[in-house]
Amino acid sequence: MAESDGAATAELSVALSDPAYREAVVDLLAVIAYGELSAFERLVEDAKLAPSLEDRLALAQMAGAELAKVQPLIDRITQLGGDPFASMAPFHEALDEFHAHTAPSDWYEGLVKAYVGDSLTRDFYREIAAYLDADTRDLVVSSVVEGQHAALAADRIRAAIAADPPLGGRLALWGRRIMGEALTQAQRVAAERDALTAFLVGGVDRPGMDLAALGRMFTRLTERHSERMSELGLDA
Amino acid sequence: MAESDGAATAELSVALSDPAYREAVVDLLAVIAYGELSAFERLVEDAKLAPSLEDRLALAQMAGAELAKVQPLIDRITQLGGDPFASMAPFHEALDEFHAHTAPSDWYEGLVKAYVGDSLTRDFYREIAAYLDADTRDLVVSSVVEGQHAALAADRIRAAIAADPPLGGRLALWGRRIMGEALTQAQRVAAERDALTAFLVGGVDRPGMDLAALGRMFTRLTERHSERMSELGLDA
Repeated sequence: MAESDGAATAELSVALSDPAYREAVVDLLAVIAYGELSAFERLVEDAKLAPSLEDRLALAQMAGAELAKVQPLIDRITQLGGDPFASMAPFHEALDEFHAHTAPSDWYEGLVKAYVGDSLTRDFYREIAAYLDADTRDLVVSSVVEGQHAALAADRIRAAIAADPPLGGRLALWGRRIMGEALTQAQRVAAERDALTAFLVGGVDRPGMDLAALGRMFTRLTERHSERMSELGLDA
Repeated sequence: MAESDGAATAELSVALSDPAYREAVVDLLAVIAYGELSAFERLVEDAKLAPSLEDRLALAQMAGAELAKVQPLIDRITQLGGDPFASMAPFHEALDEFHAHTAPSDWYEGLVKAYVGDSLTRDFYREIAAYLDADTRDLVVSSVVEGQHAALAADRIRAAIAADPPLGGRLALWGRRIMGEALTQAQRVAAERDALTAFLVGGVDRPGMDLAALGRMFTRLTERHSERMSELGLDA
């Protein structure tokens, strides 16, 4: 499973022949893979808070959809000559801390976290896609399919707030906390991973975001988060 | 998701027009569905014991394969006019107790449990298939695909015992305990669920197992379990 495949690599985009770009792509795929795996584990854990078996299954299926994205990412890292599990190691701490700081205390906090996490991840993949070679872009974007599970989570949250309006205030604060923690950990990753950051801000021969563009990307992600929170009836 | 569909039901086997048989099939599909769902949850929990991220992912993927089997079972129960989640309720206690009594204390116990549980379930589906109408049989047997993940669990167990022979003795006892607990809970289900038991032992107009045949089935399941344990280097 973890064998390097030089022949297959040769078939990939020319962009990947640049070692610095390639290192950045391995970093990016690794952080996405560990992000999906840890999201899977936390969603299954959070599903225990479900008020019914039906809801427990729905969250488990949302988790299963995250898990299914991991193997193709691992296969690609291997194909690029990387060690998938070693590549994920630098991201454990940031993602594990994100989850430790956003452990939901009840079912609705769990649903909001699932919904926000899923949507934010999706937005980030779409933002980053523009800076990737075609092969990597296809792989990253292929996992961005609007899931029926996220829609289900949104429906449940709306219904719960309609039935119990004060819940909306608590969940609005909760959504803000999740977003804040996500930004904190993202900045930490950006600060620690030179290859990834160098890629994001581009190079002499490759367009990238400058730091101002990077800042604008974070602003857009935050704005979309706020819009979604409003749609749920939560003031972010 | 939980709406009854009379038209689709009409297309199913004639056997399913017998209300008693139909009730038994709903019971059977419900116990399988809850079994797969609870196996999924426990495998994800047990994956935390993994010594490496690679192993953690492998067990998570084994769990994901169990989860994927649940939705088709739920859809069929609904199609048969049953309420899938209410149908599962009578089996919660037996399956939850099975898991509570067989919580692994380390990674290798977790692997043995995953391997034994998976194999035993597979054997049971094959045994029961002979007594089912064609539609139900296809649904039950379609989930019995020899997974690469079970083979991987077996490989890891063999390698660990080769490296540390005393581990074999402990895991042999552990395998026996899992099998004993599975039989205890199976008998409990059989004793409590009349429709299911009546189906298993047949009726005036439908071949089934008599009680002696039911006993022989349990003997065969136990024998195959012992064979598998021997193949792993464990004396069951």
